[in-house]
Amino acid sequence: MDTEWIYGKHAVKAALKNPKRVILRFVVLKSARVFWEEKNRPEIVDRNFFKATFREDIIHQGCAILVKKLKEPSIEELIADKSDERPLVLLDQIKDPQNIGSILRGAAVFGARAVITTKDNSPRLTSSIIKAASGALEIVPLIFIVNLVQTINNLKKHGFWCLGLDETASKTINEIPLDGKMMIVIGSEGDGMRRLTKESCDFIASLPSYSLQFSTLNAAQAATISLYEIFKQKR
Amino acid sequence: MDTEWIYGKHAVKAALKNPKRVILRFVVLKSARVFWEEKNRPEIVDRNFFKATFREDIIHQGCAILVKKLKEPSIEELIADKSDERPLVLLDQIKDPQNIGSILRGAAVFGARAVITTKDNSPRLTSSIIKAASGALEIVPLIFIVNLVQTINNLKKHGFWCLGLDETASKTINEIPLDGKMMIVIGSEGDGMRRLTKESCDFIASLPSYSLQFSTLNAAQAATISLYEIFKQKR
Repeated sequence: MDTEWIYGKHAVKAALKNPKRVILRFVVLKSARVFWEEKNRPEIVDRNFFKATFREDIIHQGCAILVKKLKEPSIEELIADKSDERPLVLLDQIKDPQNIGSILRGAAVFGARAVITTKDNSPRLTSSIIKAASGALEIVPLIFIVNLVQTINNLKKHGFWCLGLDETASKTINEIPLDGKMMIVIGSEGDGMRRLTKESCDFIASLPSYSLQFSTLNAAQAATISLYEIFKQKR
Repeated sequence: MDTEWIYGKHAVKAALKNPKRVILRFVVLKSARVFWEEKNRPEIVDRNFFKATFREDIIHQGCAILVKKLKEPSIEELIADKSDERPLVLLDQIKDPQNIGSILRGAAVFGARAVITTKDNSPRLTSSIIKAASGALEIVPLIFIVNLVQTINNLKKHGFWCLGLDETASKTINEIPLDGKMMIVIGSEGDGMRRLTKESCDFIASLPSYSLQFSTLNAAQAATISLYEIFKQKR
């Protein structure tokens, strides 16, 4: 299937604005507050349409569009464009769509080039990630790869530095040079990075914290803080 | 009721370690991976106990404790201790327990003194916030107040500066003096701060971003970044 549904006001609004989106259907509840322009010409549908189309627990806010999936760039394309120095974010077994959505938002705000995750252990680019990303996926691609360690090594060979976040690391990100082409690896919340992932990193660093008593942010917070640091150092 | 259930491994573990916690019961599934010390002496219960005690959709990870609620400091107590210069975080109608939990984690990691929210429009300190805070509530109190604007004005009278986050603000937080006693106000994700809340702030600022194309983080990411900035400037 090369189509997918996007629902929720922010995500729909952002997709409608994206000239790269091919929109196949645009459906709204009559009661939904109008925010689109006349040229978008939505079909008015009733609640039964949403009930039949989506899982019951999703929050669609009365609007949805059916679109062709955006074409994700390949790792080779990222490597080929040597002039682009924006950081990459790599996810090691982060599964929660809410977390992935928030990471995409952090990536969009602080200028990451792409978020990369594995095909096998992550949810596919589902509508719930698109919703959680709240429009960020129109700007930052989410790229699915087969093998994380191979991808890291491939990118390293082409001039990217690999920084893995690990709360037990003795250095903090402020002690790491962040000015080259960077990729940041974020592990899952319970277990952190897998051993082989960790061994592929050039640097392992934690985030600074006020006290040692409590030092764990969730994956999205950790990713966002490190992207913010890189963003600030590059300005 | 002055008792509450805490569930989930991280939250339970942190509460067991907190000497201020009065623990009334400690229940675990036989199958739960053991992480507590012998002295904690949990009762072994079966799945039916959890089913009968909690909503079905919660993720308890096979362990829970019944505790007395921690005594929250009052705003007057925060004001009275003049030597404590850590920032305060004030929430304007943030309702999602997951967001509040993440904000508490950011507050714990970057040394905020308390998170303050209104009684009427926020969820009470429920077990779902405790779970989402993943131990942070053992370190940072969540204080419920009646009126946010009155509380802001009261704190301002006693030497706190009020910084409201607003993505439409022309200044970014890097242009605001962050070295005094600060309170940061975070508005709800859809609507931002309410008008009267905004008018009570000494400073209104946005977070810097890579481009104007996409600038919205979720409330927890925005709170965490601003606490990180204050933390870094105070070191």
